[in-house]
Amino acid sequence: MKQQSFIAISRRAADRIRDGHVWVYSSDVQSLPEGIAPGAVVAVADNRGIPLGAAIYSAASQIALRMVSTDPALDRAGYLTLVRERVRASVSRRESQAACRLIFSEADELPGIVLDRYNDLAVLQLLTQGTAQAAVRDAVVEVVREIESIATIVERPDPRVRELEQLAPAPAEAIFNRGEAKLATVFDLNGLKFHYDANAGQKTGAFLDQRLNYAAAASYARGRALDVCTYQGGFALHLARVCDEVTAVDQSRAALEVADRNLELNASQVKKPVEWIEGDAFALLREYDAANERFDTIVLDPPAFAKTRRAAEGAMRGYKELNLRALRMLKPGGVLVTCSCSHHVHLEDFVATVAAASADAKRRVRLLETRAAAPDHPEVLTLPETRYLKCLITRVD
Amino acid sequence: MKQQSFIAISRRAADRIRDGHVWVYSSDVQSLPEGIAPGAVVAVADNRGIPLGAAIYSAASQIALRMVSTDPALDRAGYLTLVRERVRASVSRRESQAACRLIFSEADELPGIVLDRYNDLAVLQLLTQGTAQAAVRDAVVEVVREIESIATIVERPDPRVRELEQLAPAPAEAIFNRGEAKLATVFDLNGLKFHYDANAGQKTGAFLDQRLNYAAAASYARGRALDVCTYQGGFALHLARVCDEVTAVDQSRAALEVADRNLELNASQVKKPVEWIEGDAFALLREYDAANERFDTIVLDPPAFAKTRRAAEGAMRGYKELNLRALRMLKPGGVLVTCSCSHHVHLEDFVATVAAASADAKRRVRLLETRAAAPDHPEVLTLPETRYLKCLITRVD
Repeated sequence: MKQQSFIAISRRAADRIRDGHVWVYSSDVQSLPEGIAPGAVVAVADNRGIPLGAAIYSAASQIALRMVSTDPALDRAGYLTLVRERVRASVSRRESQAACRLIFSEADELPGIVLDRYNDLAVLQLLTQGTAQAAVRDAVVEVVREIESIATIVERPDPRVRELEQLAPAPAEAIFNRGEAKLATVFDLNGLKFHYDANAGQKTGAFLDQRLNYAAAASYARGRALDVCTYQGGFALHLARVCDEVTAVDQSRAALEVADRNLELNASQVKKPVEWIEGDAFALLREYDAANERFDTIVLDPPAFAKTRRAAEGAMRGYKELNLRALRMLKPGGVLVTCSCSHHVHLEDFVATVAAASADAKRRVRLLETRAAAPDHPEVLTLPETRYLKCLITRVD
Repeated sequence: MKQQSFIAISRRAADRIRDGHVWVYSSDVQSLPEGIAPGAVVAVADNRGIPLGAAIYSAASQIALRMVSTDPALDRAGYLTLVRERVRASVSRRESQAACRLIFSEADELPGIVLDRYNDLAVLQLLTQGTAQAAVRDAVVEVVREIESIATIVERPDPRVRELEQLAPAPAEAIFNRGEAKLATVFDLNGLKFHYDANAGQKTGAFLDQRLNYAAAASYARGRALDVCTYQGGFALHLARVCDEVTAVDQSRAALEVADRNLELNASQVKKPVEWIEGDAFALLREYDAANERFDTIVLDPPAFAKTRRAAEGAMRGYKELNLRALRMLKPGGVLVTCSCSHHVHLEDFVATVAAASADAKRRVRLLETRAAAPDHPEVLTLPETRYLKCLITRVD
């Protein structure tokens, strides 16, 4: 009997791939060739053996296959050629921004590869068994090193994702440098300066996806402002250029220390007082509400409450409570900027949750802008999972 | 037996009002006081007689009641006072724009009243039996005439809506003027000039809600551009500032004549050729596709296909065909700007329809911006019907 040389997937999964998706869940894998290695480039076919293309295989992730080509004959060398081509295309699609995401995984046809640029520092994340390999790293570096304004490329493994993919933890490390290697820099966002340190911070260290939302929020903000879940001060510093005073809260002391250093960096632009408060967002909002504190502008930018589909319902309760309390504390005519970055929470459900909070608070909320991630974090229409950030700018009477 | 003095509505309708909505459908009206006049200001209560507030009543519309206050004792004089207050608030919420919507009906707590500003001309629409009254008109004019840069206020009845509300058709008419009355003007949108004539054109004559989307589309557009359903050249003229050539199609010869006059107005800025084509969008796209015409930028801005909820399914087929043909005609890396202005078609369904078109066309579509109406056309969170315009800016490989 001839040895099967492809991964067979269920009919449902094959239909999804034909509709333009690129993920196959492990529960949809029907048969594997013998001895297939974690991270291998493999041919994929439907349950009748009709070829669908090639994918990178993960033996550990719930997402067993990430399609990378419609050519089932693609081998490892061909995959590396594709990576080089797509890295080049991905970089050339971006407008020249001093800080932006240069490669965004599936959205750039490079599943498992993320590259962010912070001024002269490029930060690479290889997030799956198929990409966390020296040859893939080298292929990316080979192209990115051609960008002369990038002095250093750092590889920065994401501990949580590496654990899911059963990859060993690893520290950030410079993998290319012109002159002196460095893991930290200062970058510019809408004319404000921010510290970036590859060895610290959650996610990749700064929220580049909010870049245009920071600017949009500042165009409406005024008076006394509250920034909830400020992290390293992204919204807070933008608000501080236009508001009279800013209070910013986060539960991470480390993040607030960076926020305060960011404030110092921008001392010439930010003349108004900014107060950093370490604490839980829910507890602080309850306390402020009870104390009758009132604000002209409130930003809510909580971390993803719903990390899984199952957690979405609990997340909705969280969003509703945060938004309800914020609405109660806004002066008439105030501005609420409310975000959700969980892709399990859809825009319409998020809008409905804020609407329910507005009905409970008996406040009339006008939605002025419905915003998403900046265009360097594109969404792919046929991959709903690439749609995640929602930012509503509202006026509250 | 005591004469009932309020309109009783169903429990379901009452729950909707308590959740922040303001409409009651005629099928939810359970009992009417005797002799209630069309357009009257009436008290509204739930099916147990518990007061909900006051509404304006329409004897003809499917929307029988539009809530205007939580005070059930509101009378006609009180309503007129509210109108004056809300017109003032509505105008003061807008940033100073030379062309913008100053009053947007339910979104400004003024159901049945719309006021647009085109430079020195303000155009009033009174769209329900409760607002198409001399006293309401006078209340609006009393406030708006205080804006010194407005020279003339015109009342412009919408024939379709007036028919639905069983109101007699009426021509546009100046109802206030400083000096010489005029019904036409030239206004500025993003630095381009447009003709406005209160006696011509569908809707109110120009699509102010697309103002920021025109500018956003132009920031991505390039090369050879096609503007489908151009109307009076809104997108086309914005594209013509940055593209090499623009072809613009509309089925209305009258609209294209205005578009051509608009082009002449901007001759100093628009140096590139613009061709106006009178024809059906579907037929033209089929013809272009068959002739292998290719474009770098395509804008689709069709009129609302779905005027009713029932028509939404047919509308989806229309959207899919338009988008499929446009995707097929885009060069790799091209820009598709695709709009829907039907509130019966929700954003997620519209995105899914364009995604399905992209799968059929085997084109990879990256969503760069998800946009809605400009902030002078706000959406009210608890009134999903105020959410209508969707504008996706995408890059197509």
